[in-house]
Amino acid sequence: MISAAETLREIRARKPLVHQITNYVVMNETANATLALGALPVMAHAGEEVEEMTRLASSLVINIGTLSGHWVEAMLLAGGAATARQIPVVLDPVGAGATEYRTATARRILDLVDVTVVRGNPGEVATLIGAEAEVRGVESISVGTGAAELARAAARRLGVVASVTGPVDHVSDGERVLAVANGHPLLAAVTGTGCMSSALTGCFLAAKPQEPLEAAAEALAAFGVAAEDAADGAGGPGTFHARLYDALYRLDPAGLDGRTRIEEL
Amino acid sequence: MISAAETLREIRARKPLVHQITNYVVMNETANATLALGALPVMAHAGEEVEEMTRLASSLVINIGTLSGHWVEAMLLAGGAATARQIPVVLDPVGAGATEYRTATARRILDLVDVTVVRGNPGEVATLIGAEAEVRGVESISVGTGAAELARAAARRLGVVASVTGPVDHVSDGERVLAVANGHPLLAAVTGTGCMSSALTGCFLAAKPQEPLEAAAEALAAFGVAAEDAADGAGGPGTFHARLYDALYRLDPAGLDGRTRIEEL
Amino acid sequence: MISAAETLREIRARKPLVHQITNYVVMNETANATLALGALPVMAHAGEEVEEMTRLASSLVINIGTLSGHWVEAMLLAGGAATARQIPVVLDPVGAGATEYRTATARRILDLVDVTVVRGNPGEVATLIGAEAEVRGVESISVGTGAAELARAAARRLGVVASVTGPVDHVSDGERVLAVANGHPLLAAVTGTGCMSSALTGCFLAAKPQEPLEAAAEALAAFGVAAEDAADGAGGPGTFHARLYDALYRLDPAGLDGRTRIEEL
Repeated sequence: MISAAETLREIRARKPLVHQITNYVVMNETANATLALGALPVMAHAGEEVEEMTRLASSLVINIGTLSGHWVEAMLLAGGAATARQIPVVLDPVGAGATEYRTATARRILDLVDVTVVRGNPGEVATLIGAEAEVRGVESISVGTGAAELARAAARRLGVVASVTGPVDHVSDGERVLAVANGHPLLAAVTGTGCMSSALTGCFLAAKPQEPLEAAAEALAAFGVAAEDAADGAGGPGTFHARLYDALYRLDPAGLDGRTRIEEL
Repeated sequence: MISAAETLREIRARKPLVHQITNYVVMNETANATLALGALPVMAHAGEEVEEMTRLASSLVINIGTLSGHWVEAMLLAGGAATARQIPVVLDPVGAGATEYRTATARRILDLVDVTVVRGNPGEVATLIGAEAEVRGVESISVGTGAAELARAAARRLGVVASVTGPVDHVSDGERVLAVANGHPLLAAVTGTGCMSSALTGCFLAAKPQEPLEAAAEALAAFGVAAEDAADGAGGPGTFHARLYDALYRLDPAGLDGRTRIEEL
Repeated sequence: MISAAETLREIRARKPLVHQITNYVVMNETANATLALGALPVMAHAGEEVEEMTRLASSLVINIGTLSGHWVEAMLLAGGAATARQIPVVLDPVGAGATEYRTATARRILDLVDVTVVRGNPGEVATLIGAEAEVRGVESISVGTGAAELARAAARRLGVVASVTGPVDHVSDGERVLAVANGHPLLAAVTGTGCMSSALTGCFLAAKPQEPLEAAAEALAAFGVAAEDAADGAGGPGTFHARLYDALYRLDPAGLDGRTRIEEL
C-alpha cells in the first residue's frame, strides 16, 4: 500500500538510524534532512568502524559524489555488512557517466552489494545499463529514452528498484512504474538535493523494508511536498534551502497523502 | 568569577585563533559559529602542518565525528603541540560508545594529550568512564546515572573539566558542578550543534584559560542564549540554523549575564 | 571590454562546467554559489578521475584551504590537464603564510601549473611574492604595501592576474589595475566567502577566457553586488549567507553594469 503519511509516522515513532557514506559536499545537508524528517543520521567511513556502524543501522546509503580509494573500500565493507544483515541499501551513483572511475565504481558496488534502490538522475541511471546518455559533470543533460521506460529497464537489468528523478520522478521494480509529480524547480538550484532524496529514501526504506518500490516513491513524494512548502515564500535557492529543513520537520502526516501525487503508470 | 559577558568581550577584543580538527559534517558550521561569535577559526589536519598551525593558535578543538587513521595521527600531533604550549584543548568524543574505534580513539587522545575540557552528550561521556549508557549512532539515548553526578565522576576519572550537554547542561571539574539551563529544543533538530558548542567552548577557553570550569559553562550559556534568540521567529530547524549565526553575531554583552542561567549545584 | 552583465548572460546561456578541487569547509558553499550564479559545479579529487574530469570542464579552481598529500597530487594532475587544454585556472592560496606547508604548496602549484588568476587576501598574496605580511590562520591582518601595488607586483612576479580582495578589491595583470568597490562587511563574517569569490572567478573566466583581467574583476563586482542585495534585510551572517545565494540567483544582467563599481586606477 502506498501511504507516505503512514511511513512517515513509522519513521518518527521508531527514529531509525540511517548510516550514510556520502560525499564531502552534502554531508551536512543529508544529515540535516534526515534529522529534520525524524530519523537519525550517522556518518562513518573508516575501515576500522564502518561494518560495526552498519550493524547498528536500519539502512545504509552509499553516495559516490566525491569518491576516492579508501572510501570505495569502506562502501564495500559497509555494503557487505548491510547485505549480511539484509538491511536496505540505497546507492546514489553521482556522476556515473562523467568519468570512467565513477561508472566503474558504481558497477562494482552493484556487483558486490545487495543494493535495494538505485536513486539517480536519468543520465546516471542510463549509464549504468549502457543506454545512451549525455551527462555534464554530475548533471544529466539528456537520455535517449523515456524516463518511465528507463526506470523499468534499469530495475530489470540491475535487479533493483530504480528511482529516476527529474521534473517528474519514475520509480520501478521492473514490473510496475510509479510516477511522482511532487517537487519544485528550485530543487535544481541547490547542490545536493538529489543526495538528500537518496538519504530520505534510506529513511523510508528503514521504516518499510518489505516494500521498497512503495517506500522509494513515498520518499520522493514527501520530499517533493516539503519542497513545495519551502518554495512558498522563498526568495531564491538560499532561503529555499533553509526552509526545506523547516518543511521536512513540519511535514504533517495528517494531510500528506492528500498532497502526494504518486500515480501508477 | 562567572561572566559570559566579560569573556565574550575579551574574545571580541582579542579575536583568538581557534584551531579545529573536526569532522567533515560540521566543518563549515563550527567555523561559522566561531566567526559569528567573534573569534577566528582555522581548520588544518595535514601531518605536514598541524603542529605549526597549533603553535599559532590560542586553543585547540579535537572532534572525532568522522575519524580515520590519518586524522587521528594529526589530532595527536596537534594535541602534542598544544600540550607543549599549554594551550587549552577541547575534546568532543562524537559517537564514543557507538563503535569500538571511536571509544578507543577518544581514550587514546585522553591518554596522550593534556585535554582541558571533554564536551559530549551523556552517552559519550558515560562510555569514556565505563559507565552504563545507551547510544544510537551519535545520539545519546539514556545513561544509568544523573547528569550532574556523571559530569562530576567523569571530571575526576579523566582529570578534565567534563561538559555534559543535554536539555540542561552540567559542567564539572570534579568538585564543583555548574548547571546551565539555557538553550532550545530546536538545537537537537540541527546536525552539529553539539560540535558547535565544543567549538565555542574552545573560544571561551582561549579567552579565559585559567578558569576552564567557568569558561566551559559560559560558552554553553552564551550558545544557549543565542539559540533562544534564534528560535524566536524561526519556522523550523533550517531557518533556526541560519538565525543561530545571526544570534551569535548579535549577542550583546550588555544584557548577557542577566540572561544566562548558570547555577552551582 | 568590462561588462559583468554581458559575461553573466554568457554564463547563464552556456552553463559552463567549473571543476573545483577545494577545501572541506566550503565545498557545499562554492558549489551552491556556482549553481546559483548559473554555471555547473563539479567536485572531484581522486587521482583516478581528476584529469578526466578537468578535460570535461571549462575552467578549474584549485583551493588549498584544507590540503593534504593526496589532494595536492590531485591538484597538480588536474592543473596539468588544464594547462594541456589551455583552460583557465584559478588558484586560491588559502592560508599561504600561515604554515610553511601551505606556502610551499601554493608555490609548487604556481611552478607546475599554468595559473591564470591568483585570488587571495593581501597577506596570502604578499606571502607568495616574499613581501612583508602578517597573517593569522587564514586571515590577513596587514601587509607592508598598498593593495593596488601589491596586486600589480604579484601579477608581474607570478605571471598571473592577481586578484587581491578586501574592503576594496584590486585586480591586476601587471600593467593595468582595476579596483572593485562592491561588497559588504558581512562577507567577512561568513566562512568561505573568499573561496566563493574564487569559484565565481572560475565561472567568469570560463565564459570570458581571453580577458582574464576583466573577467576576474567582473566576478568580484557581481559577487559584491549580490552581497549588497543579500545584506539588505539580513539579520546577521546566517541569514545573509542564505540570502547571498538568493541574490546570486536573482542577479539581473539588465541593471548590473549600472551597479558595478569597477574603476581603472
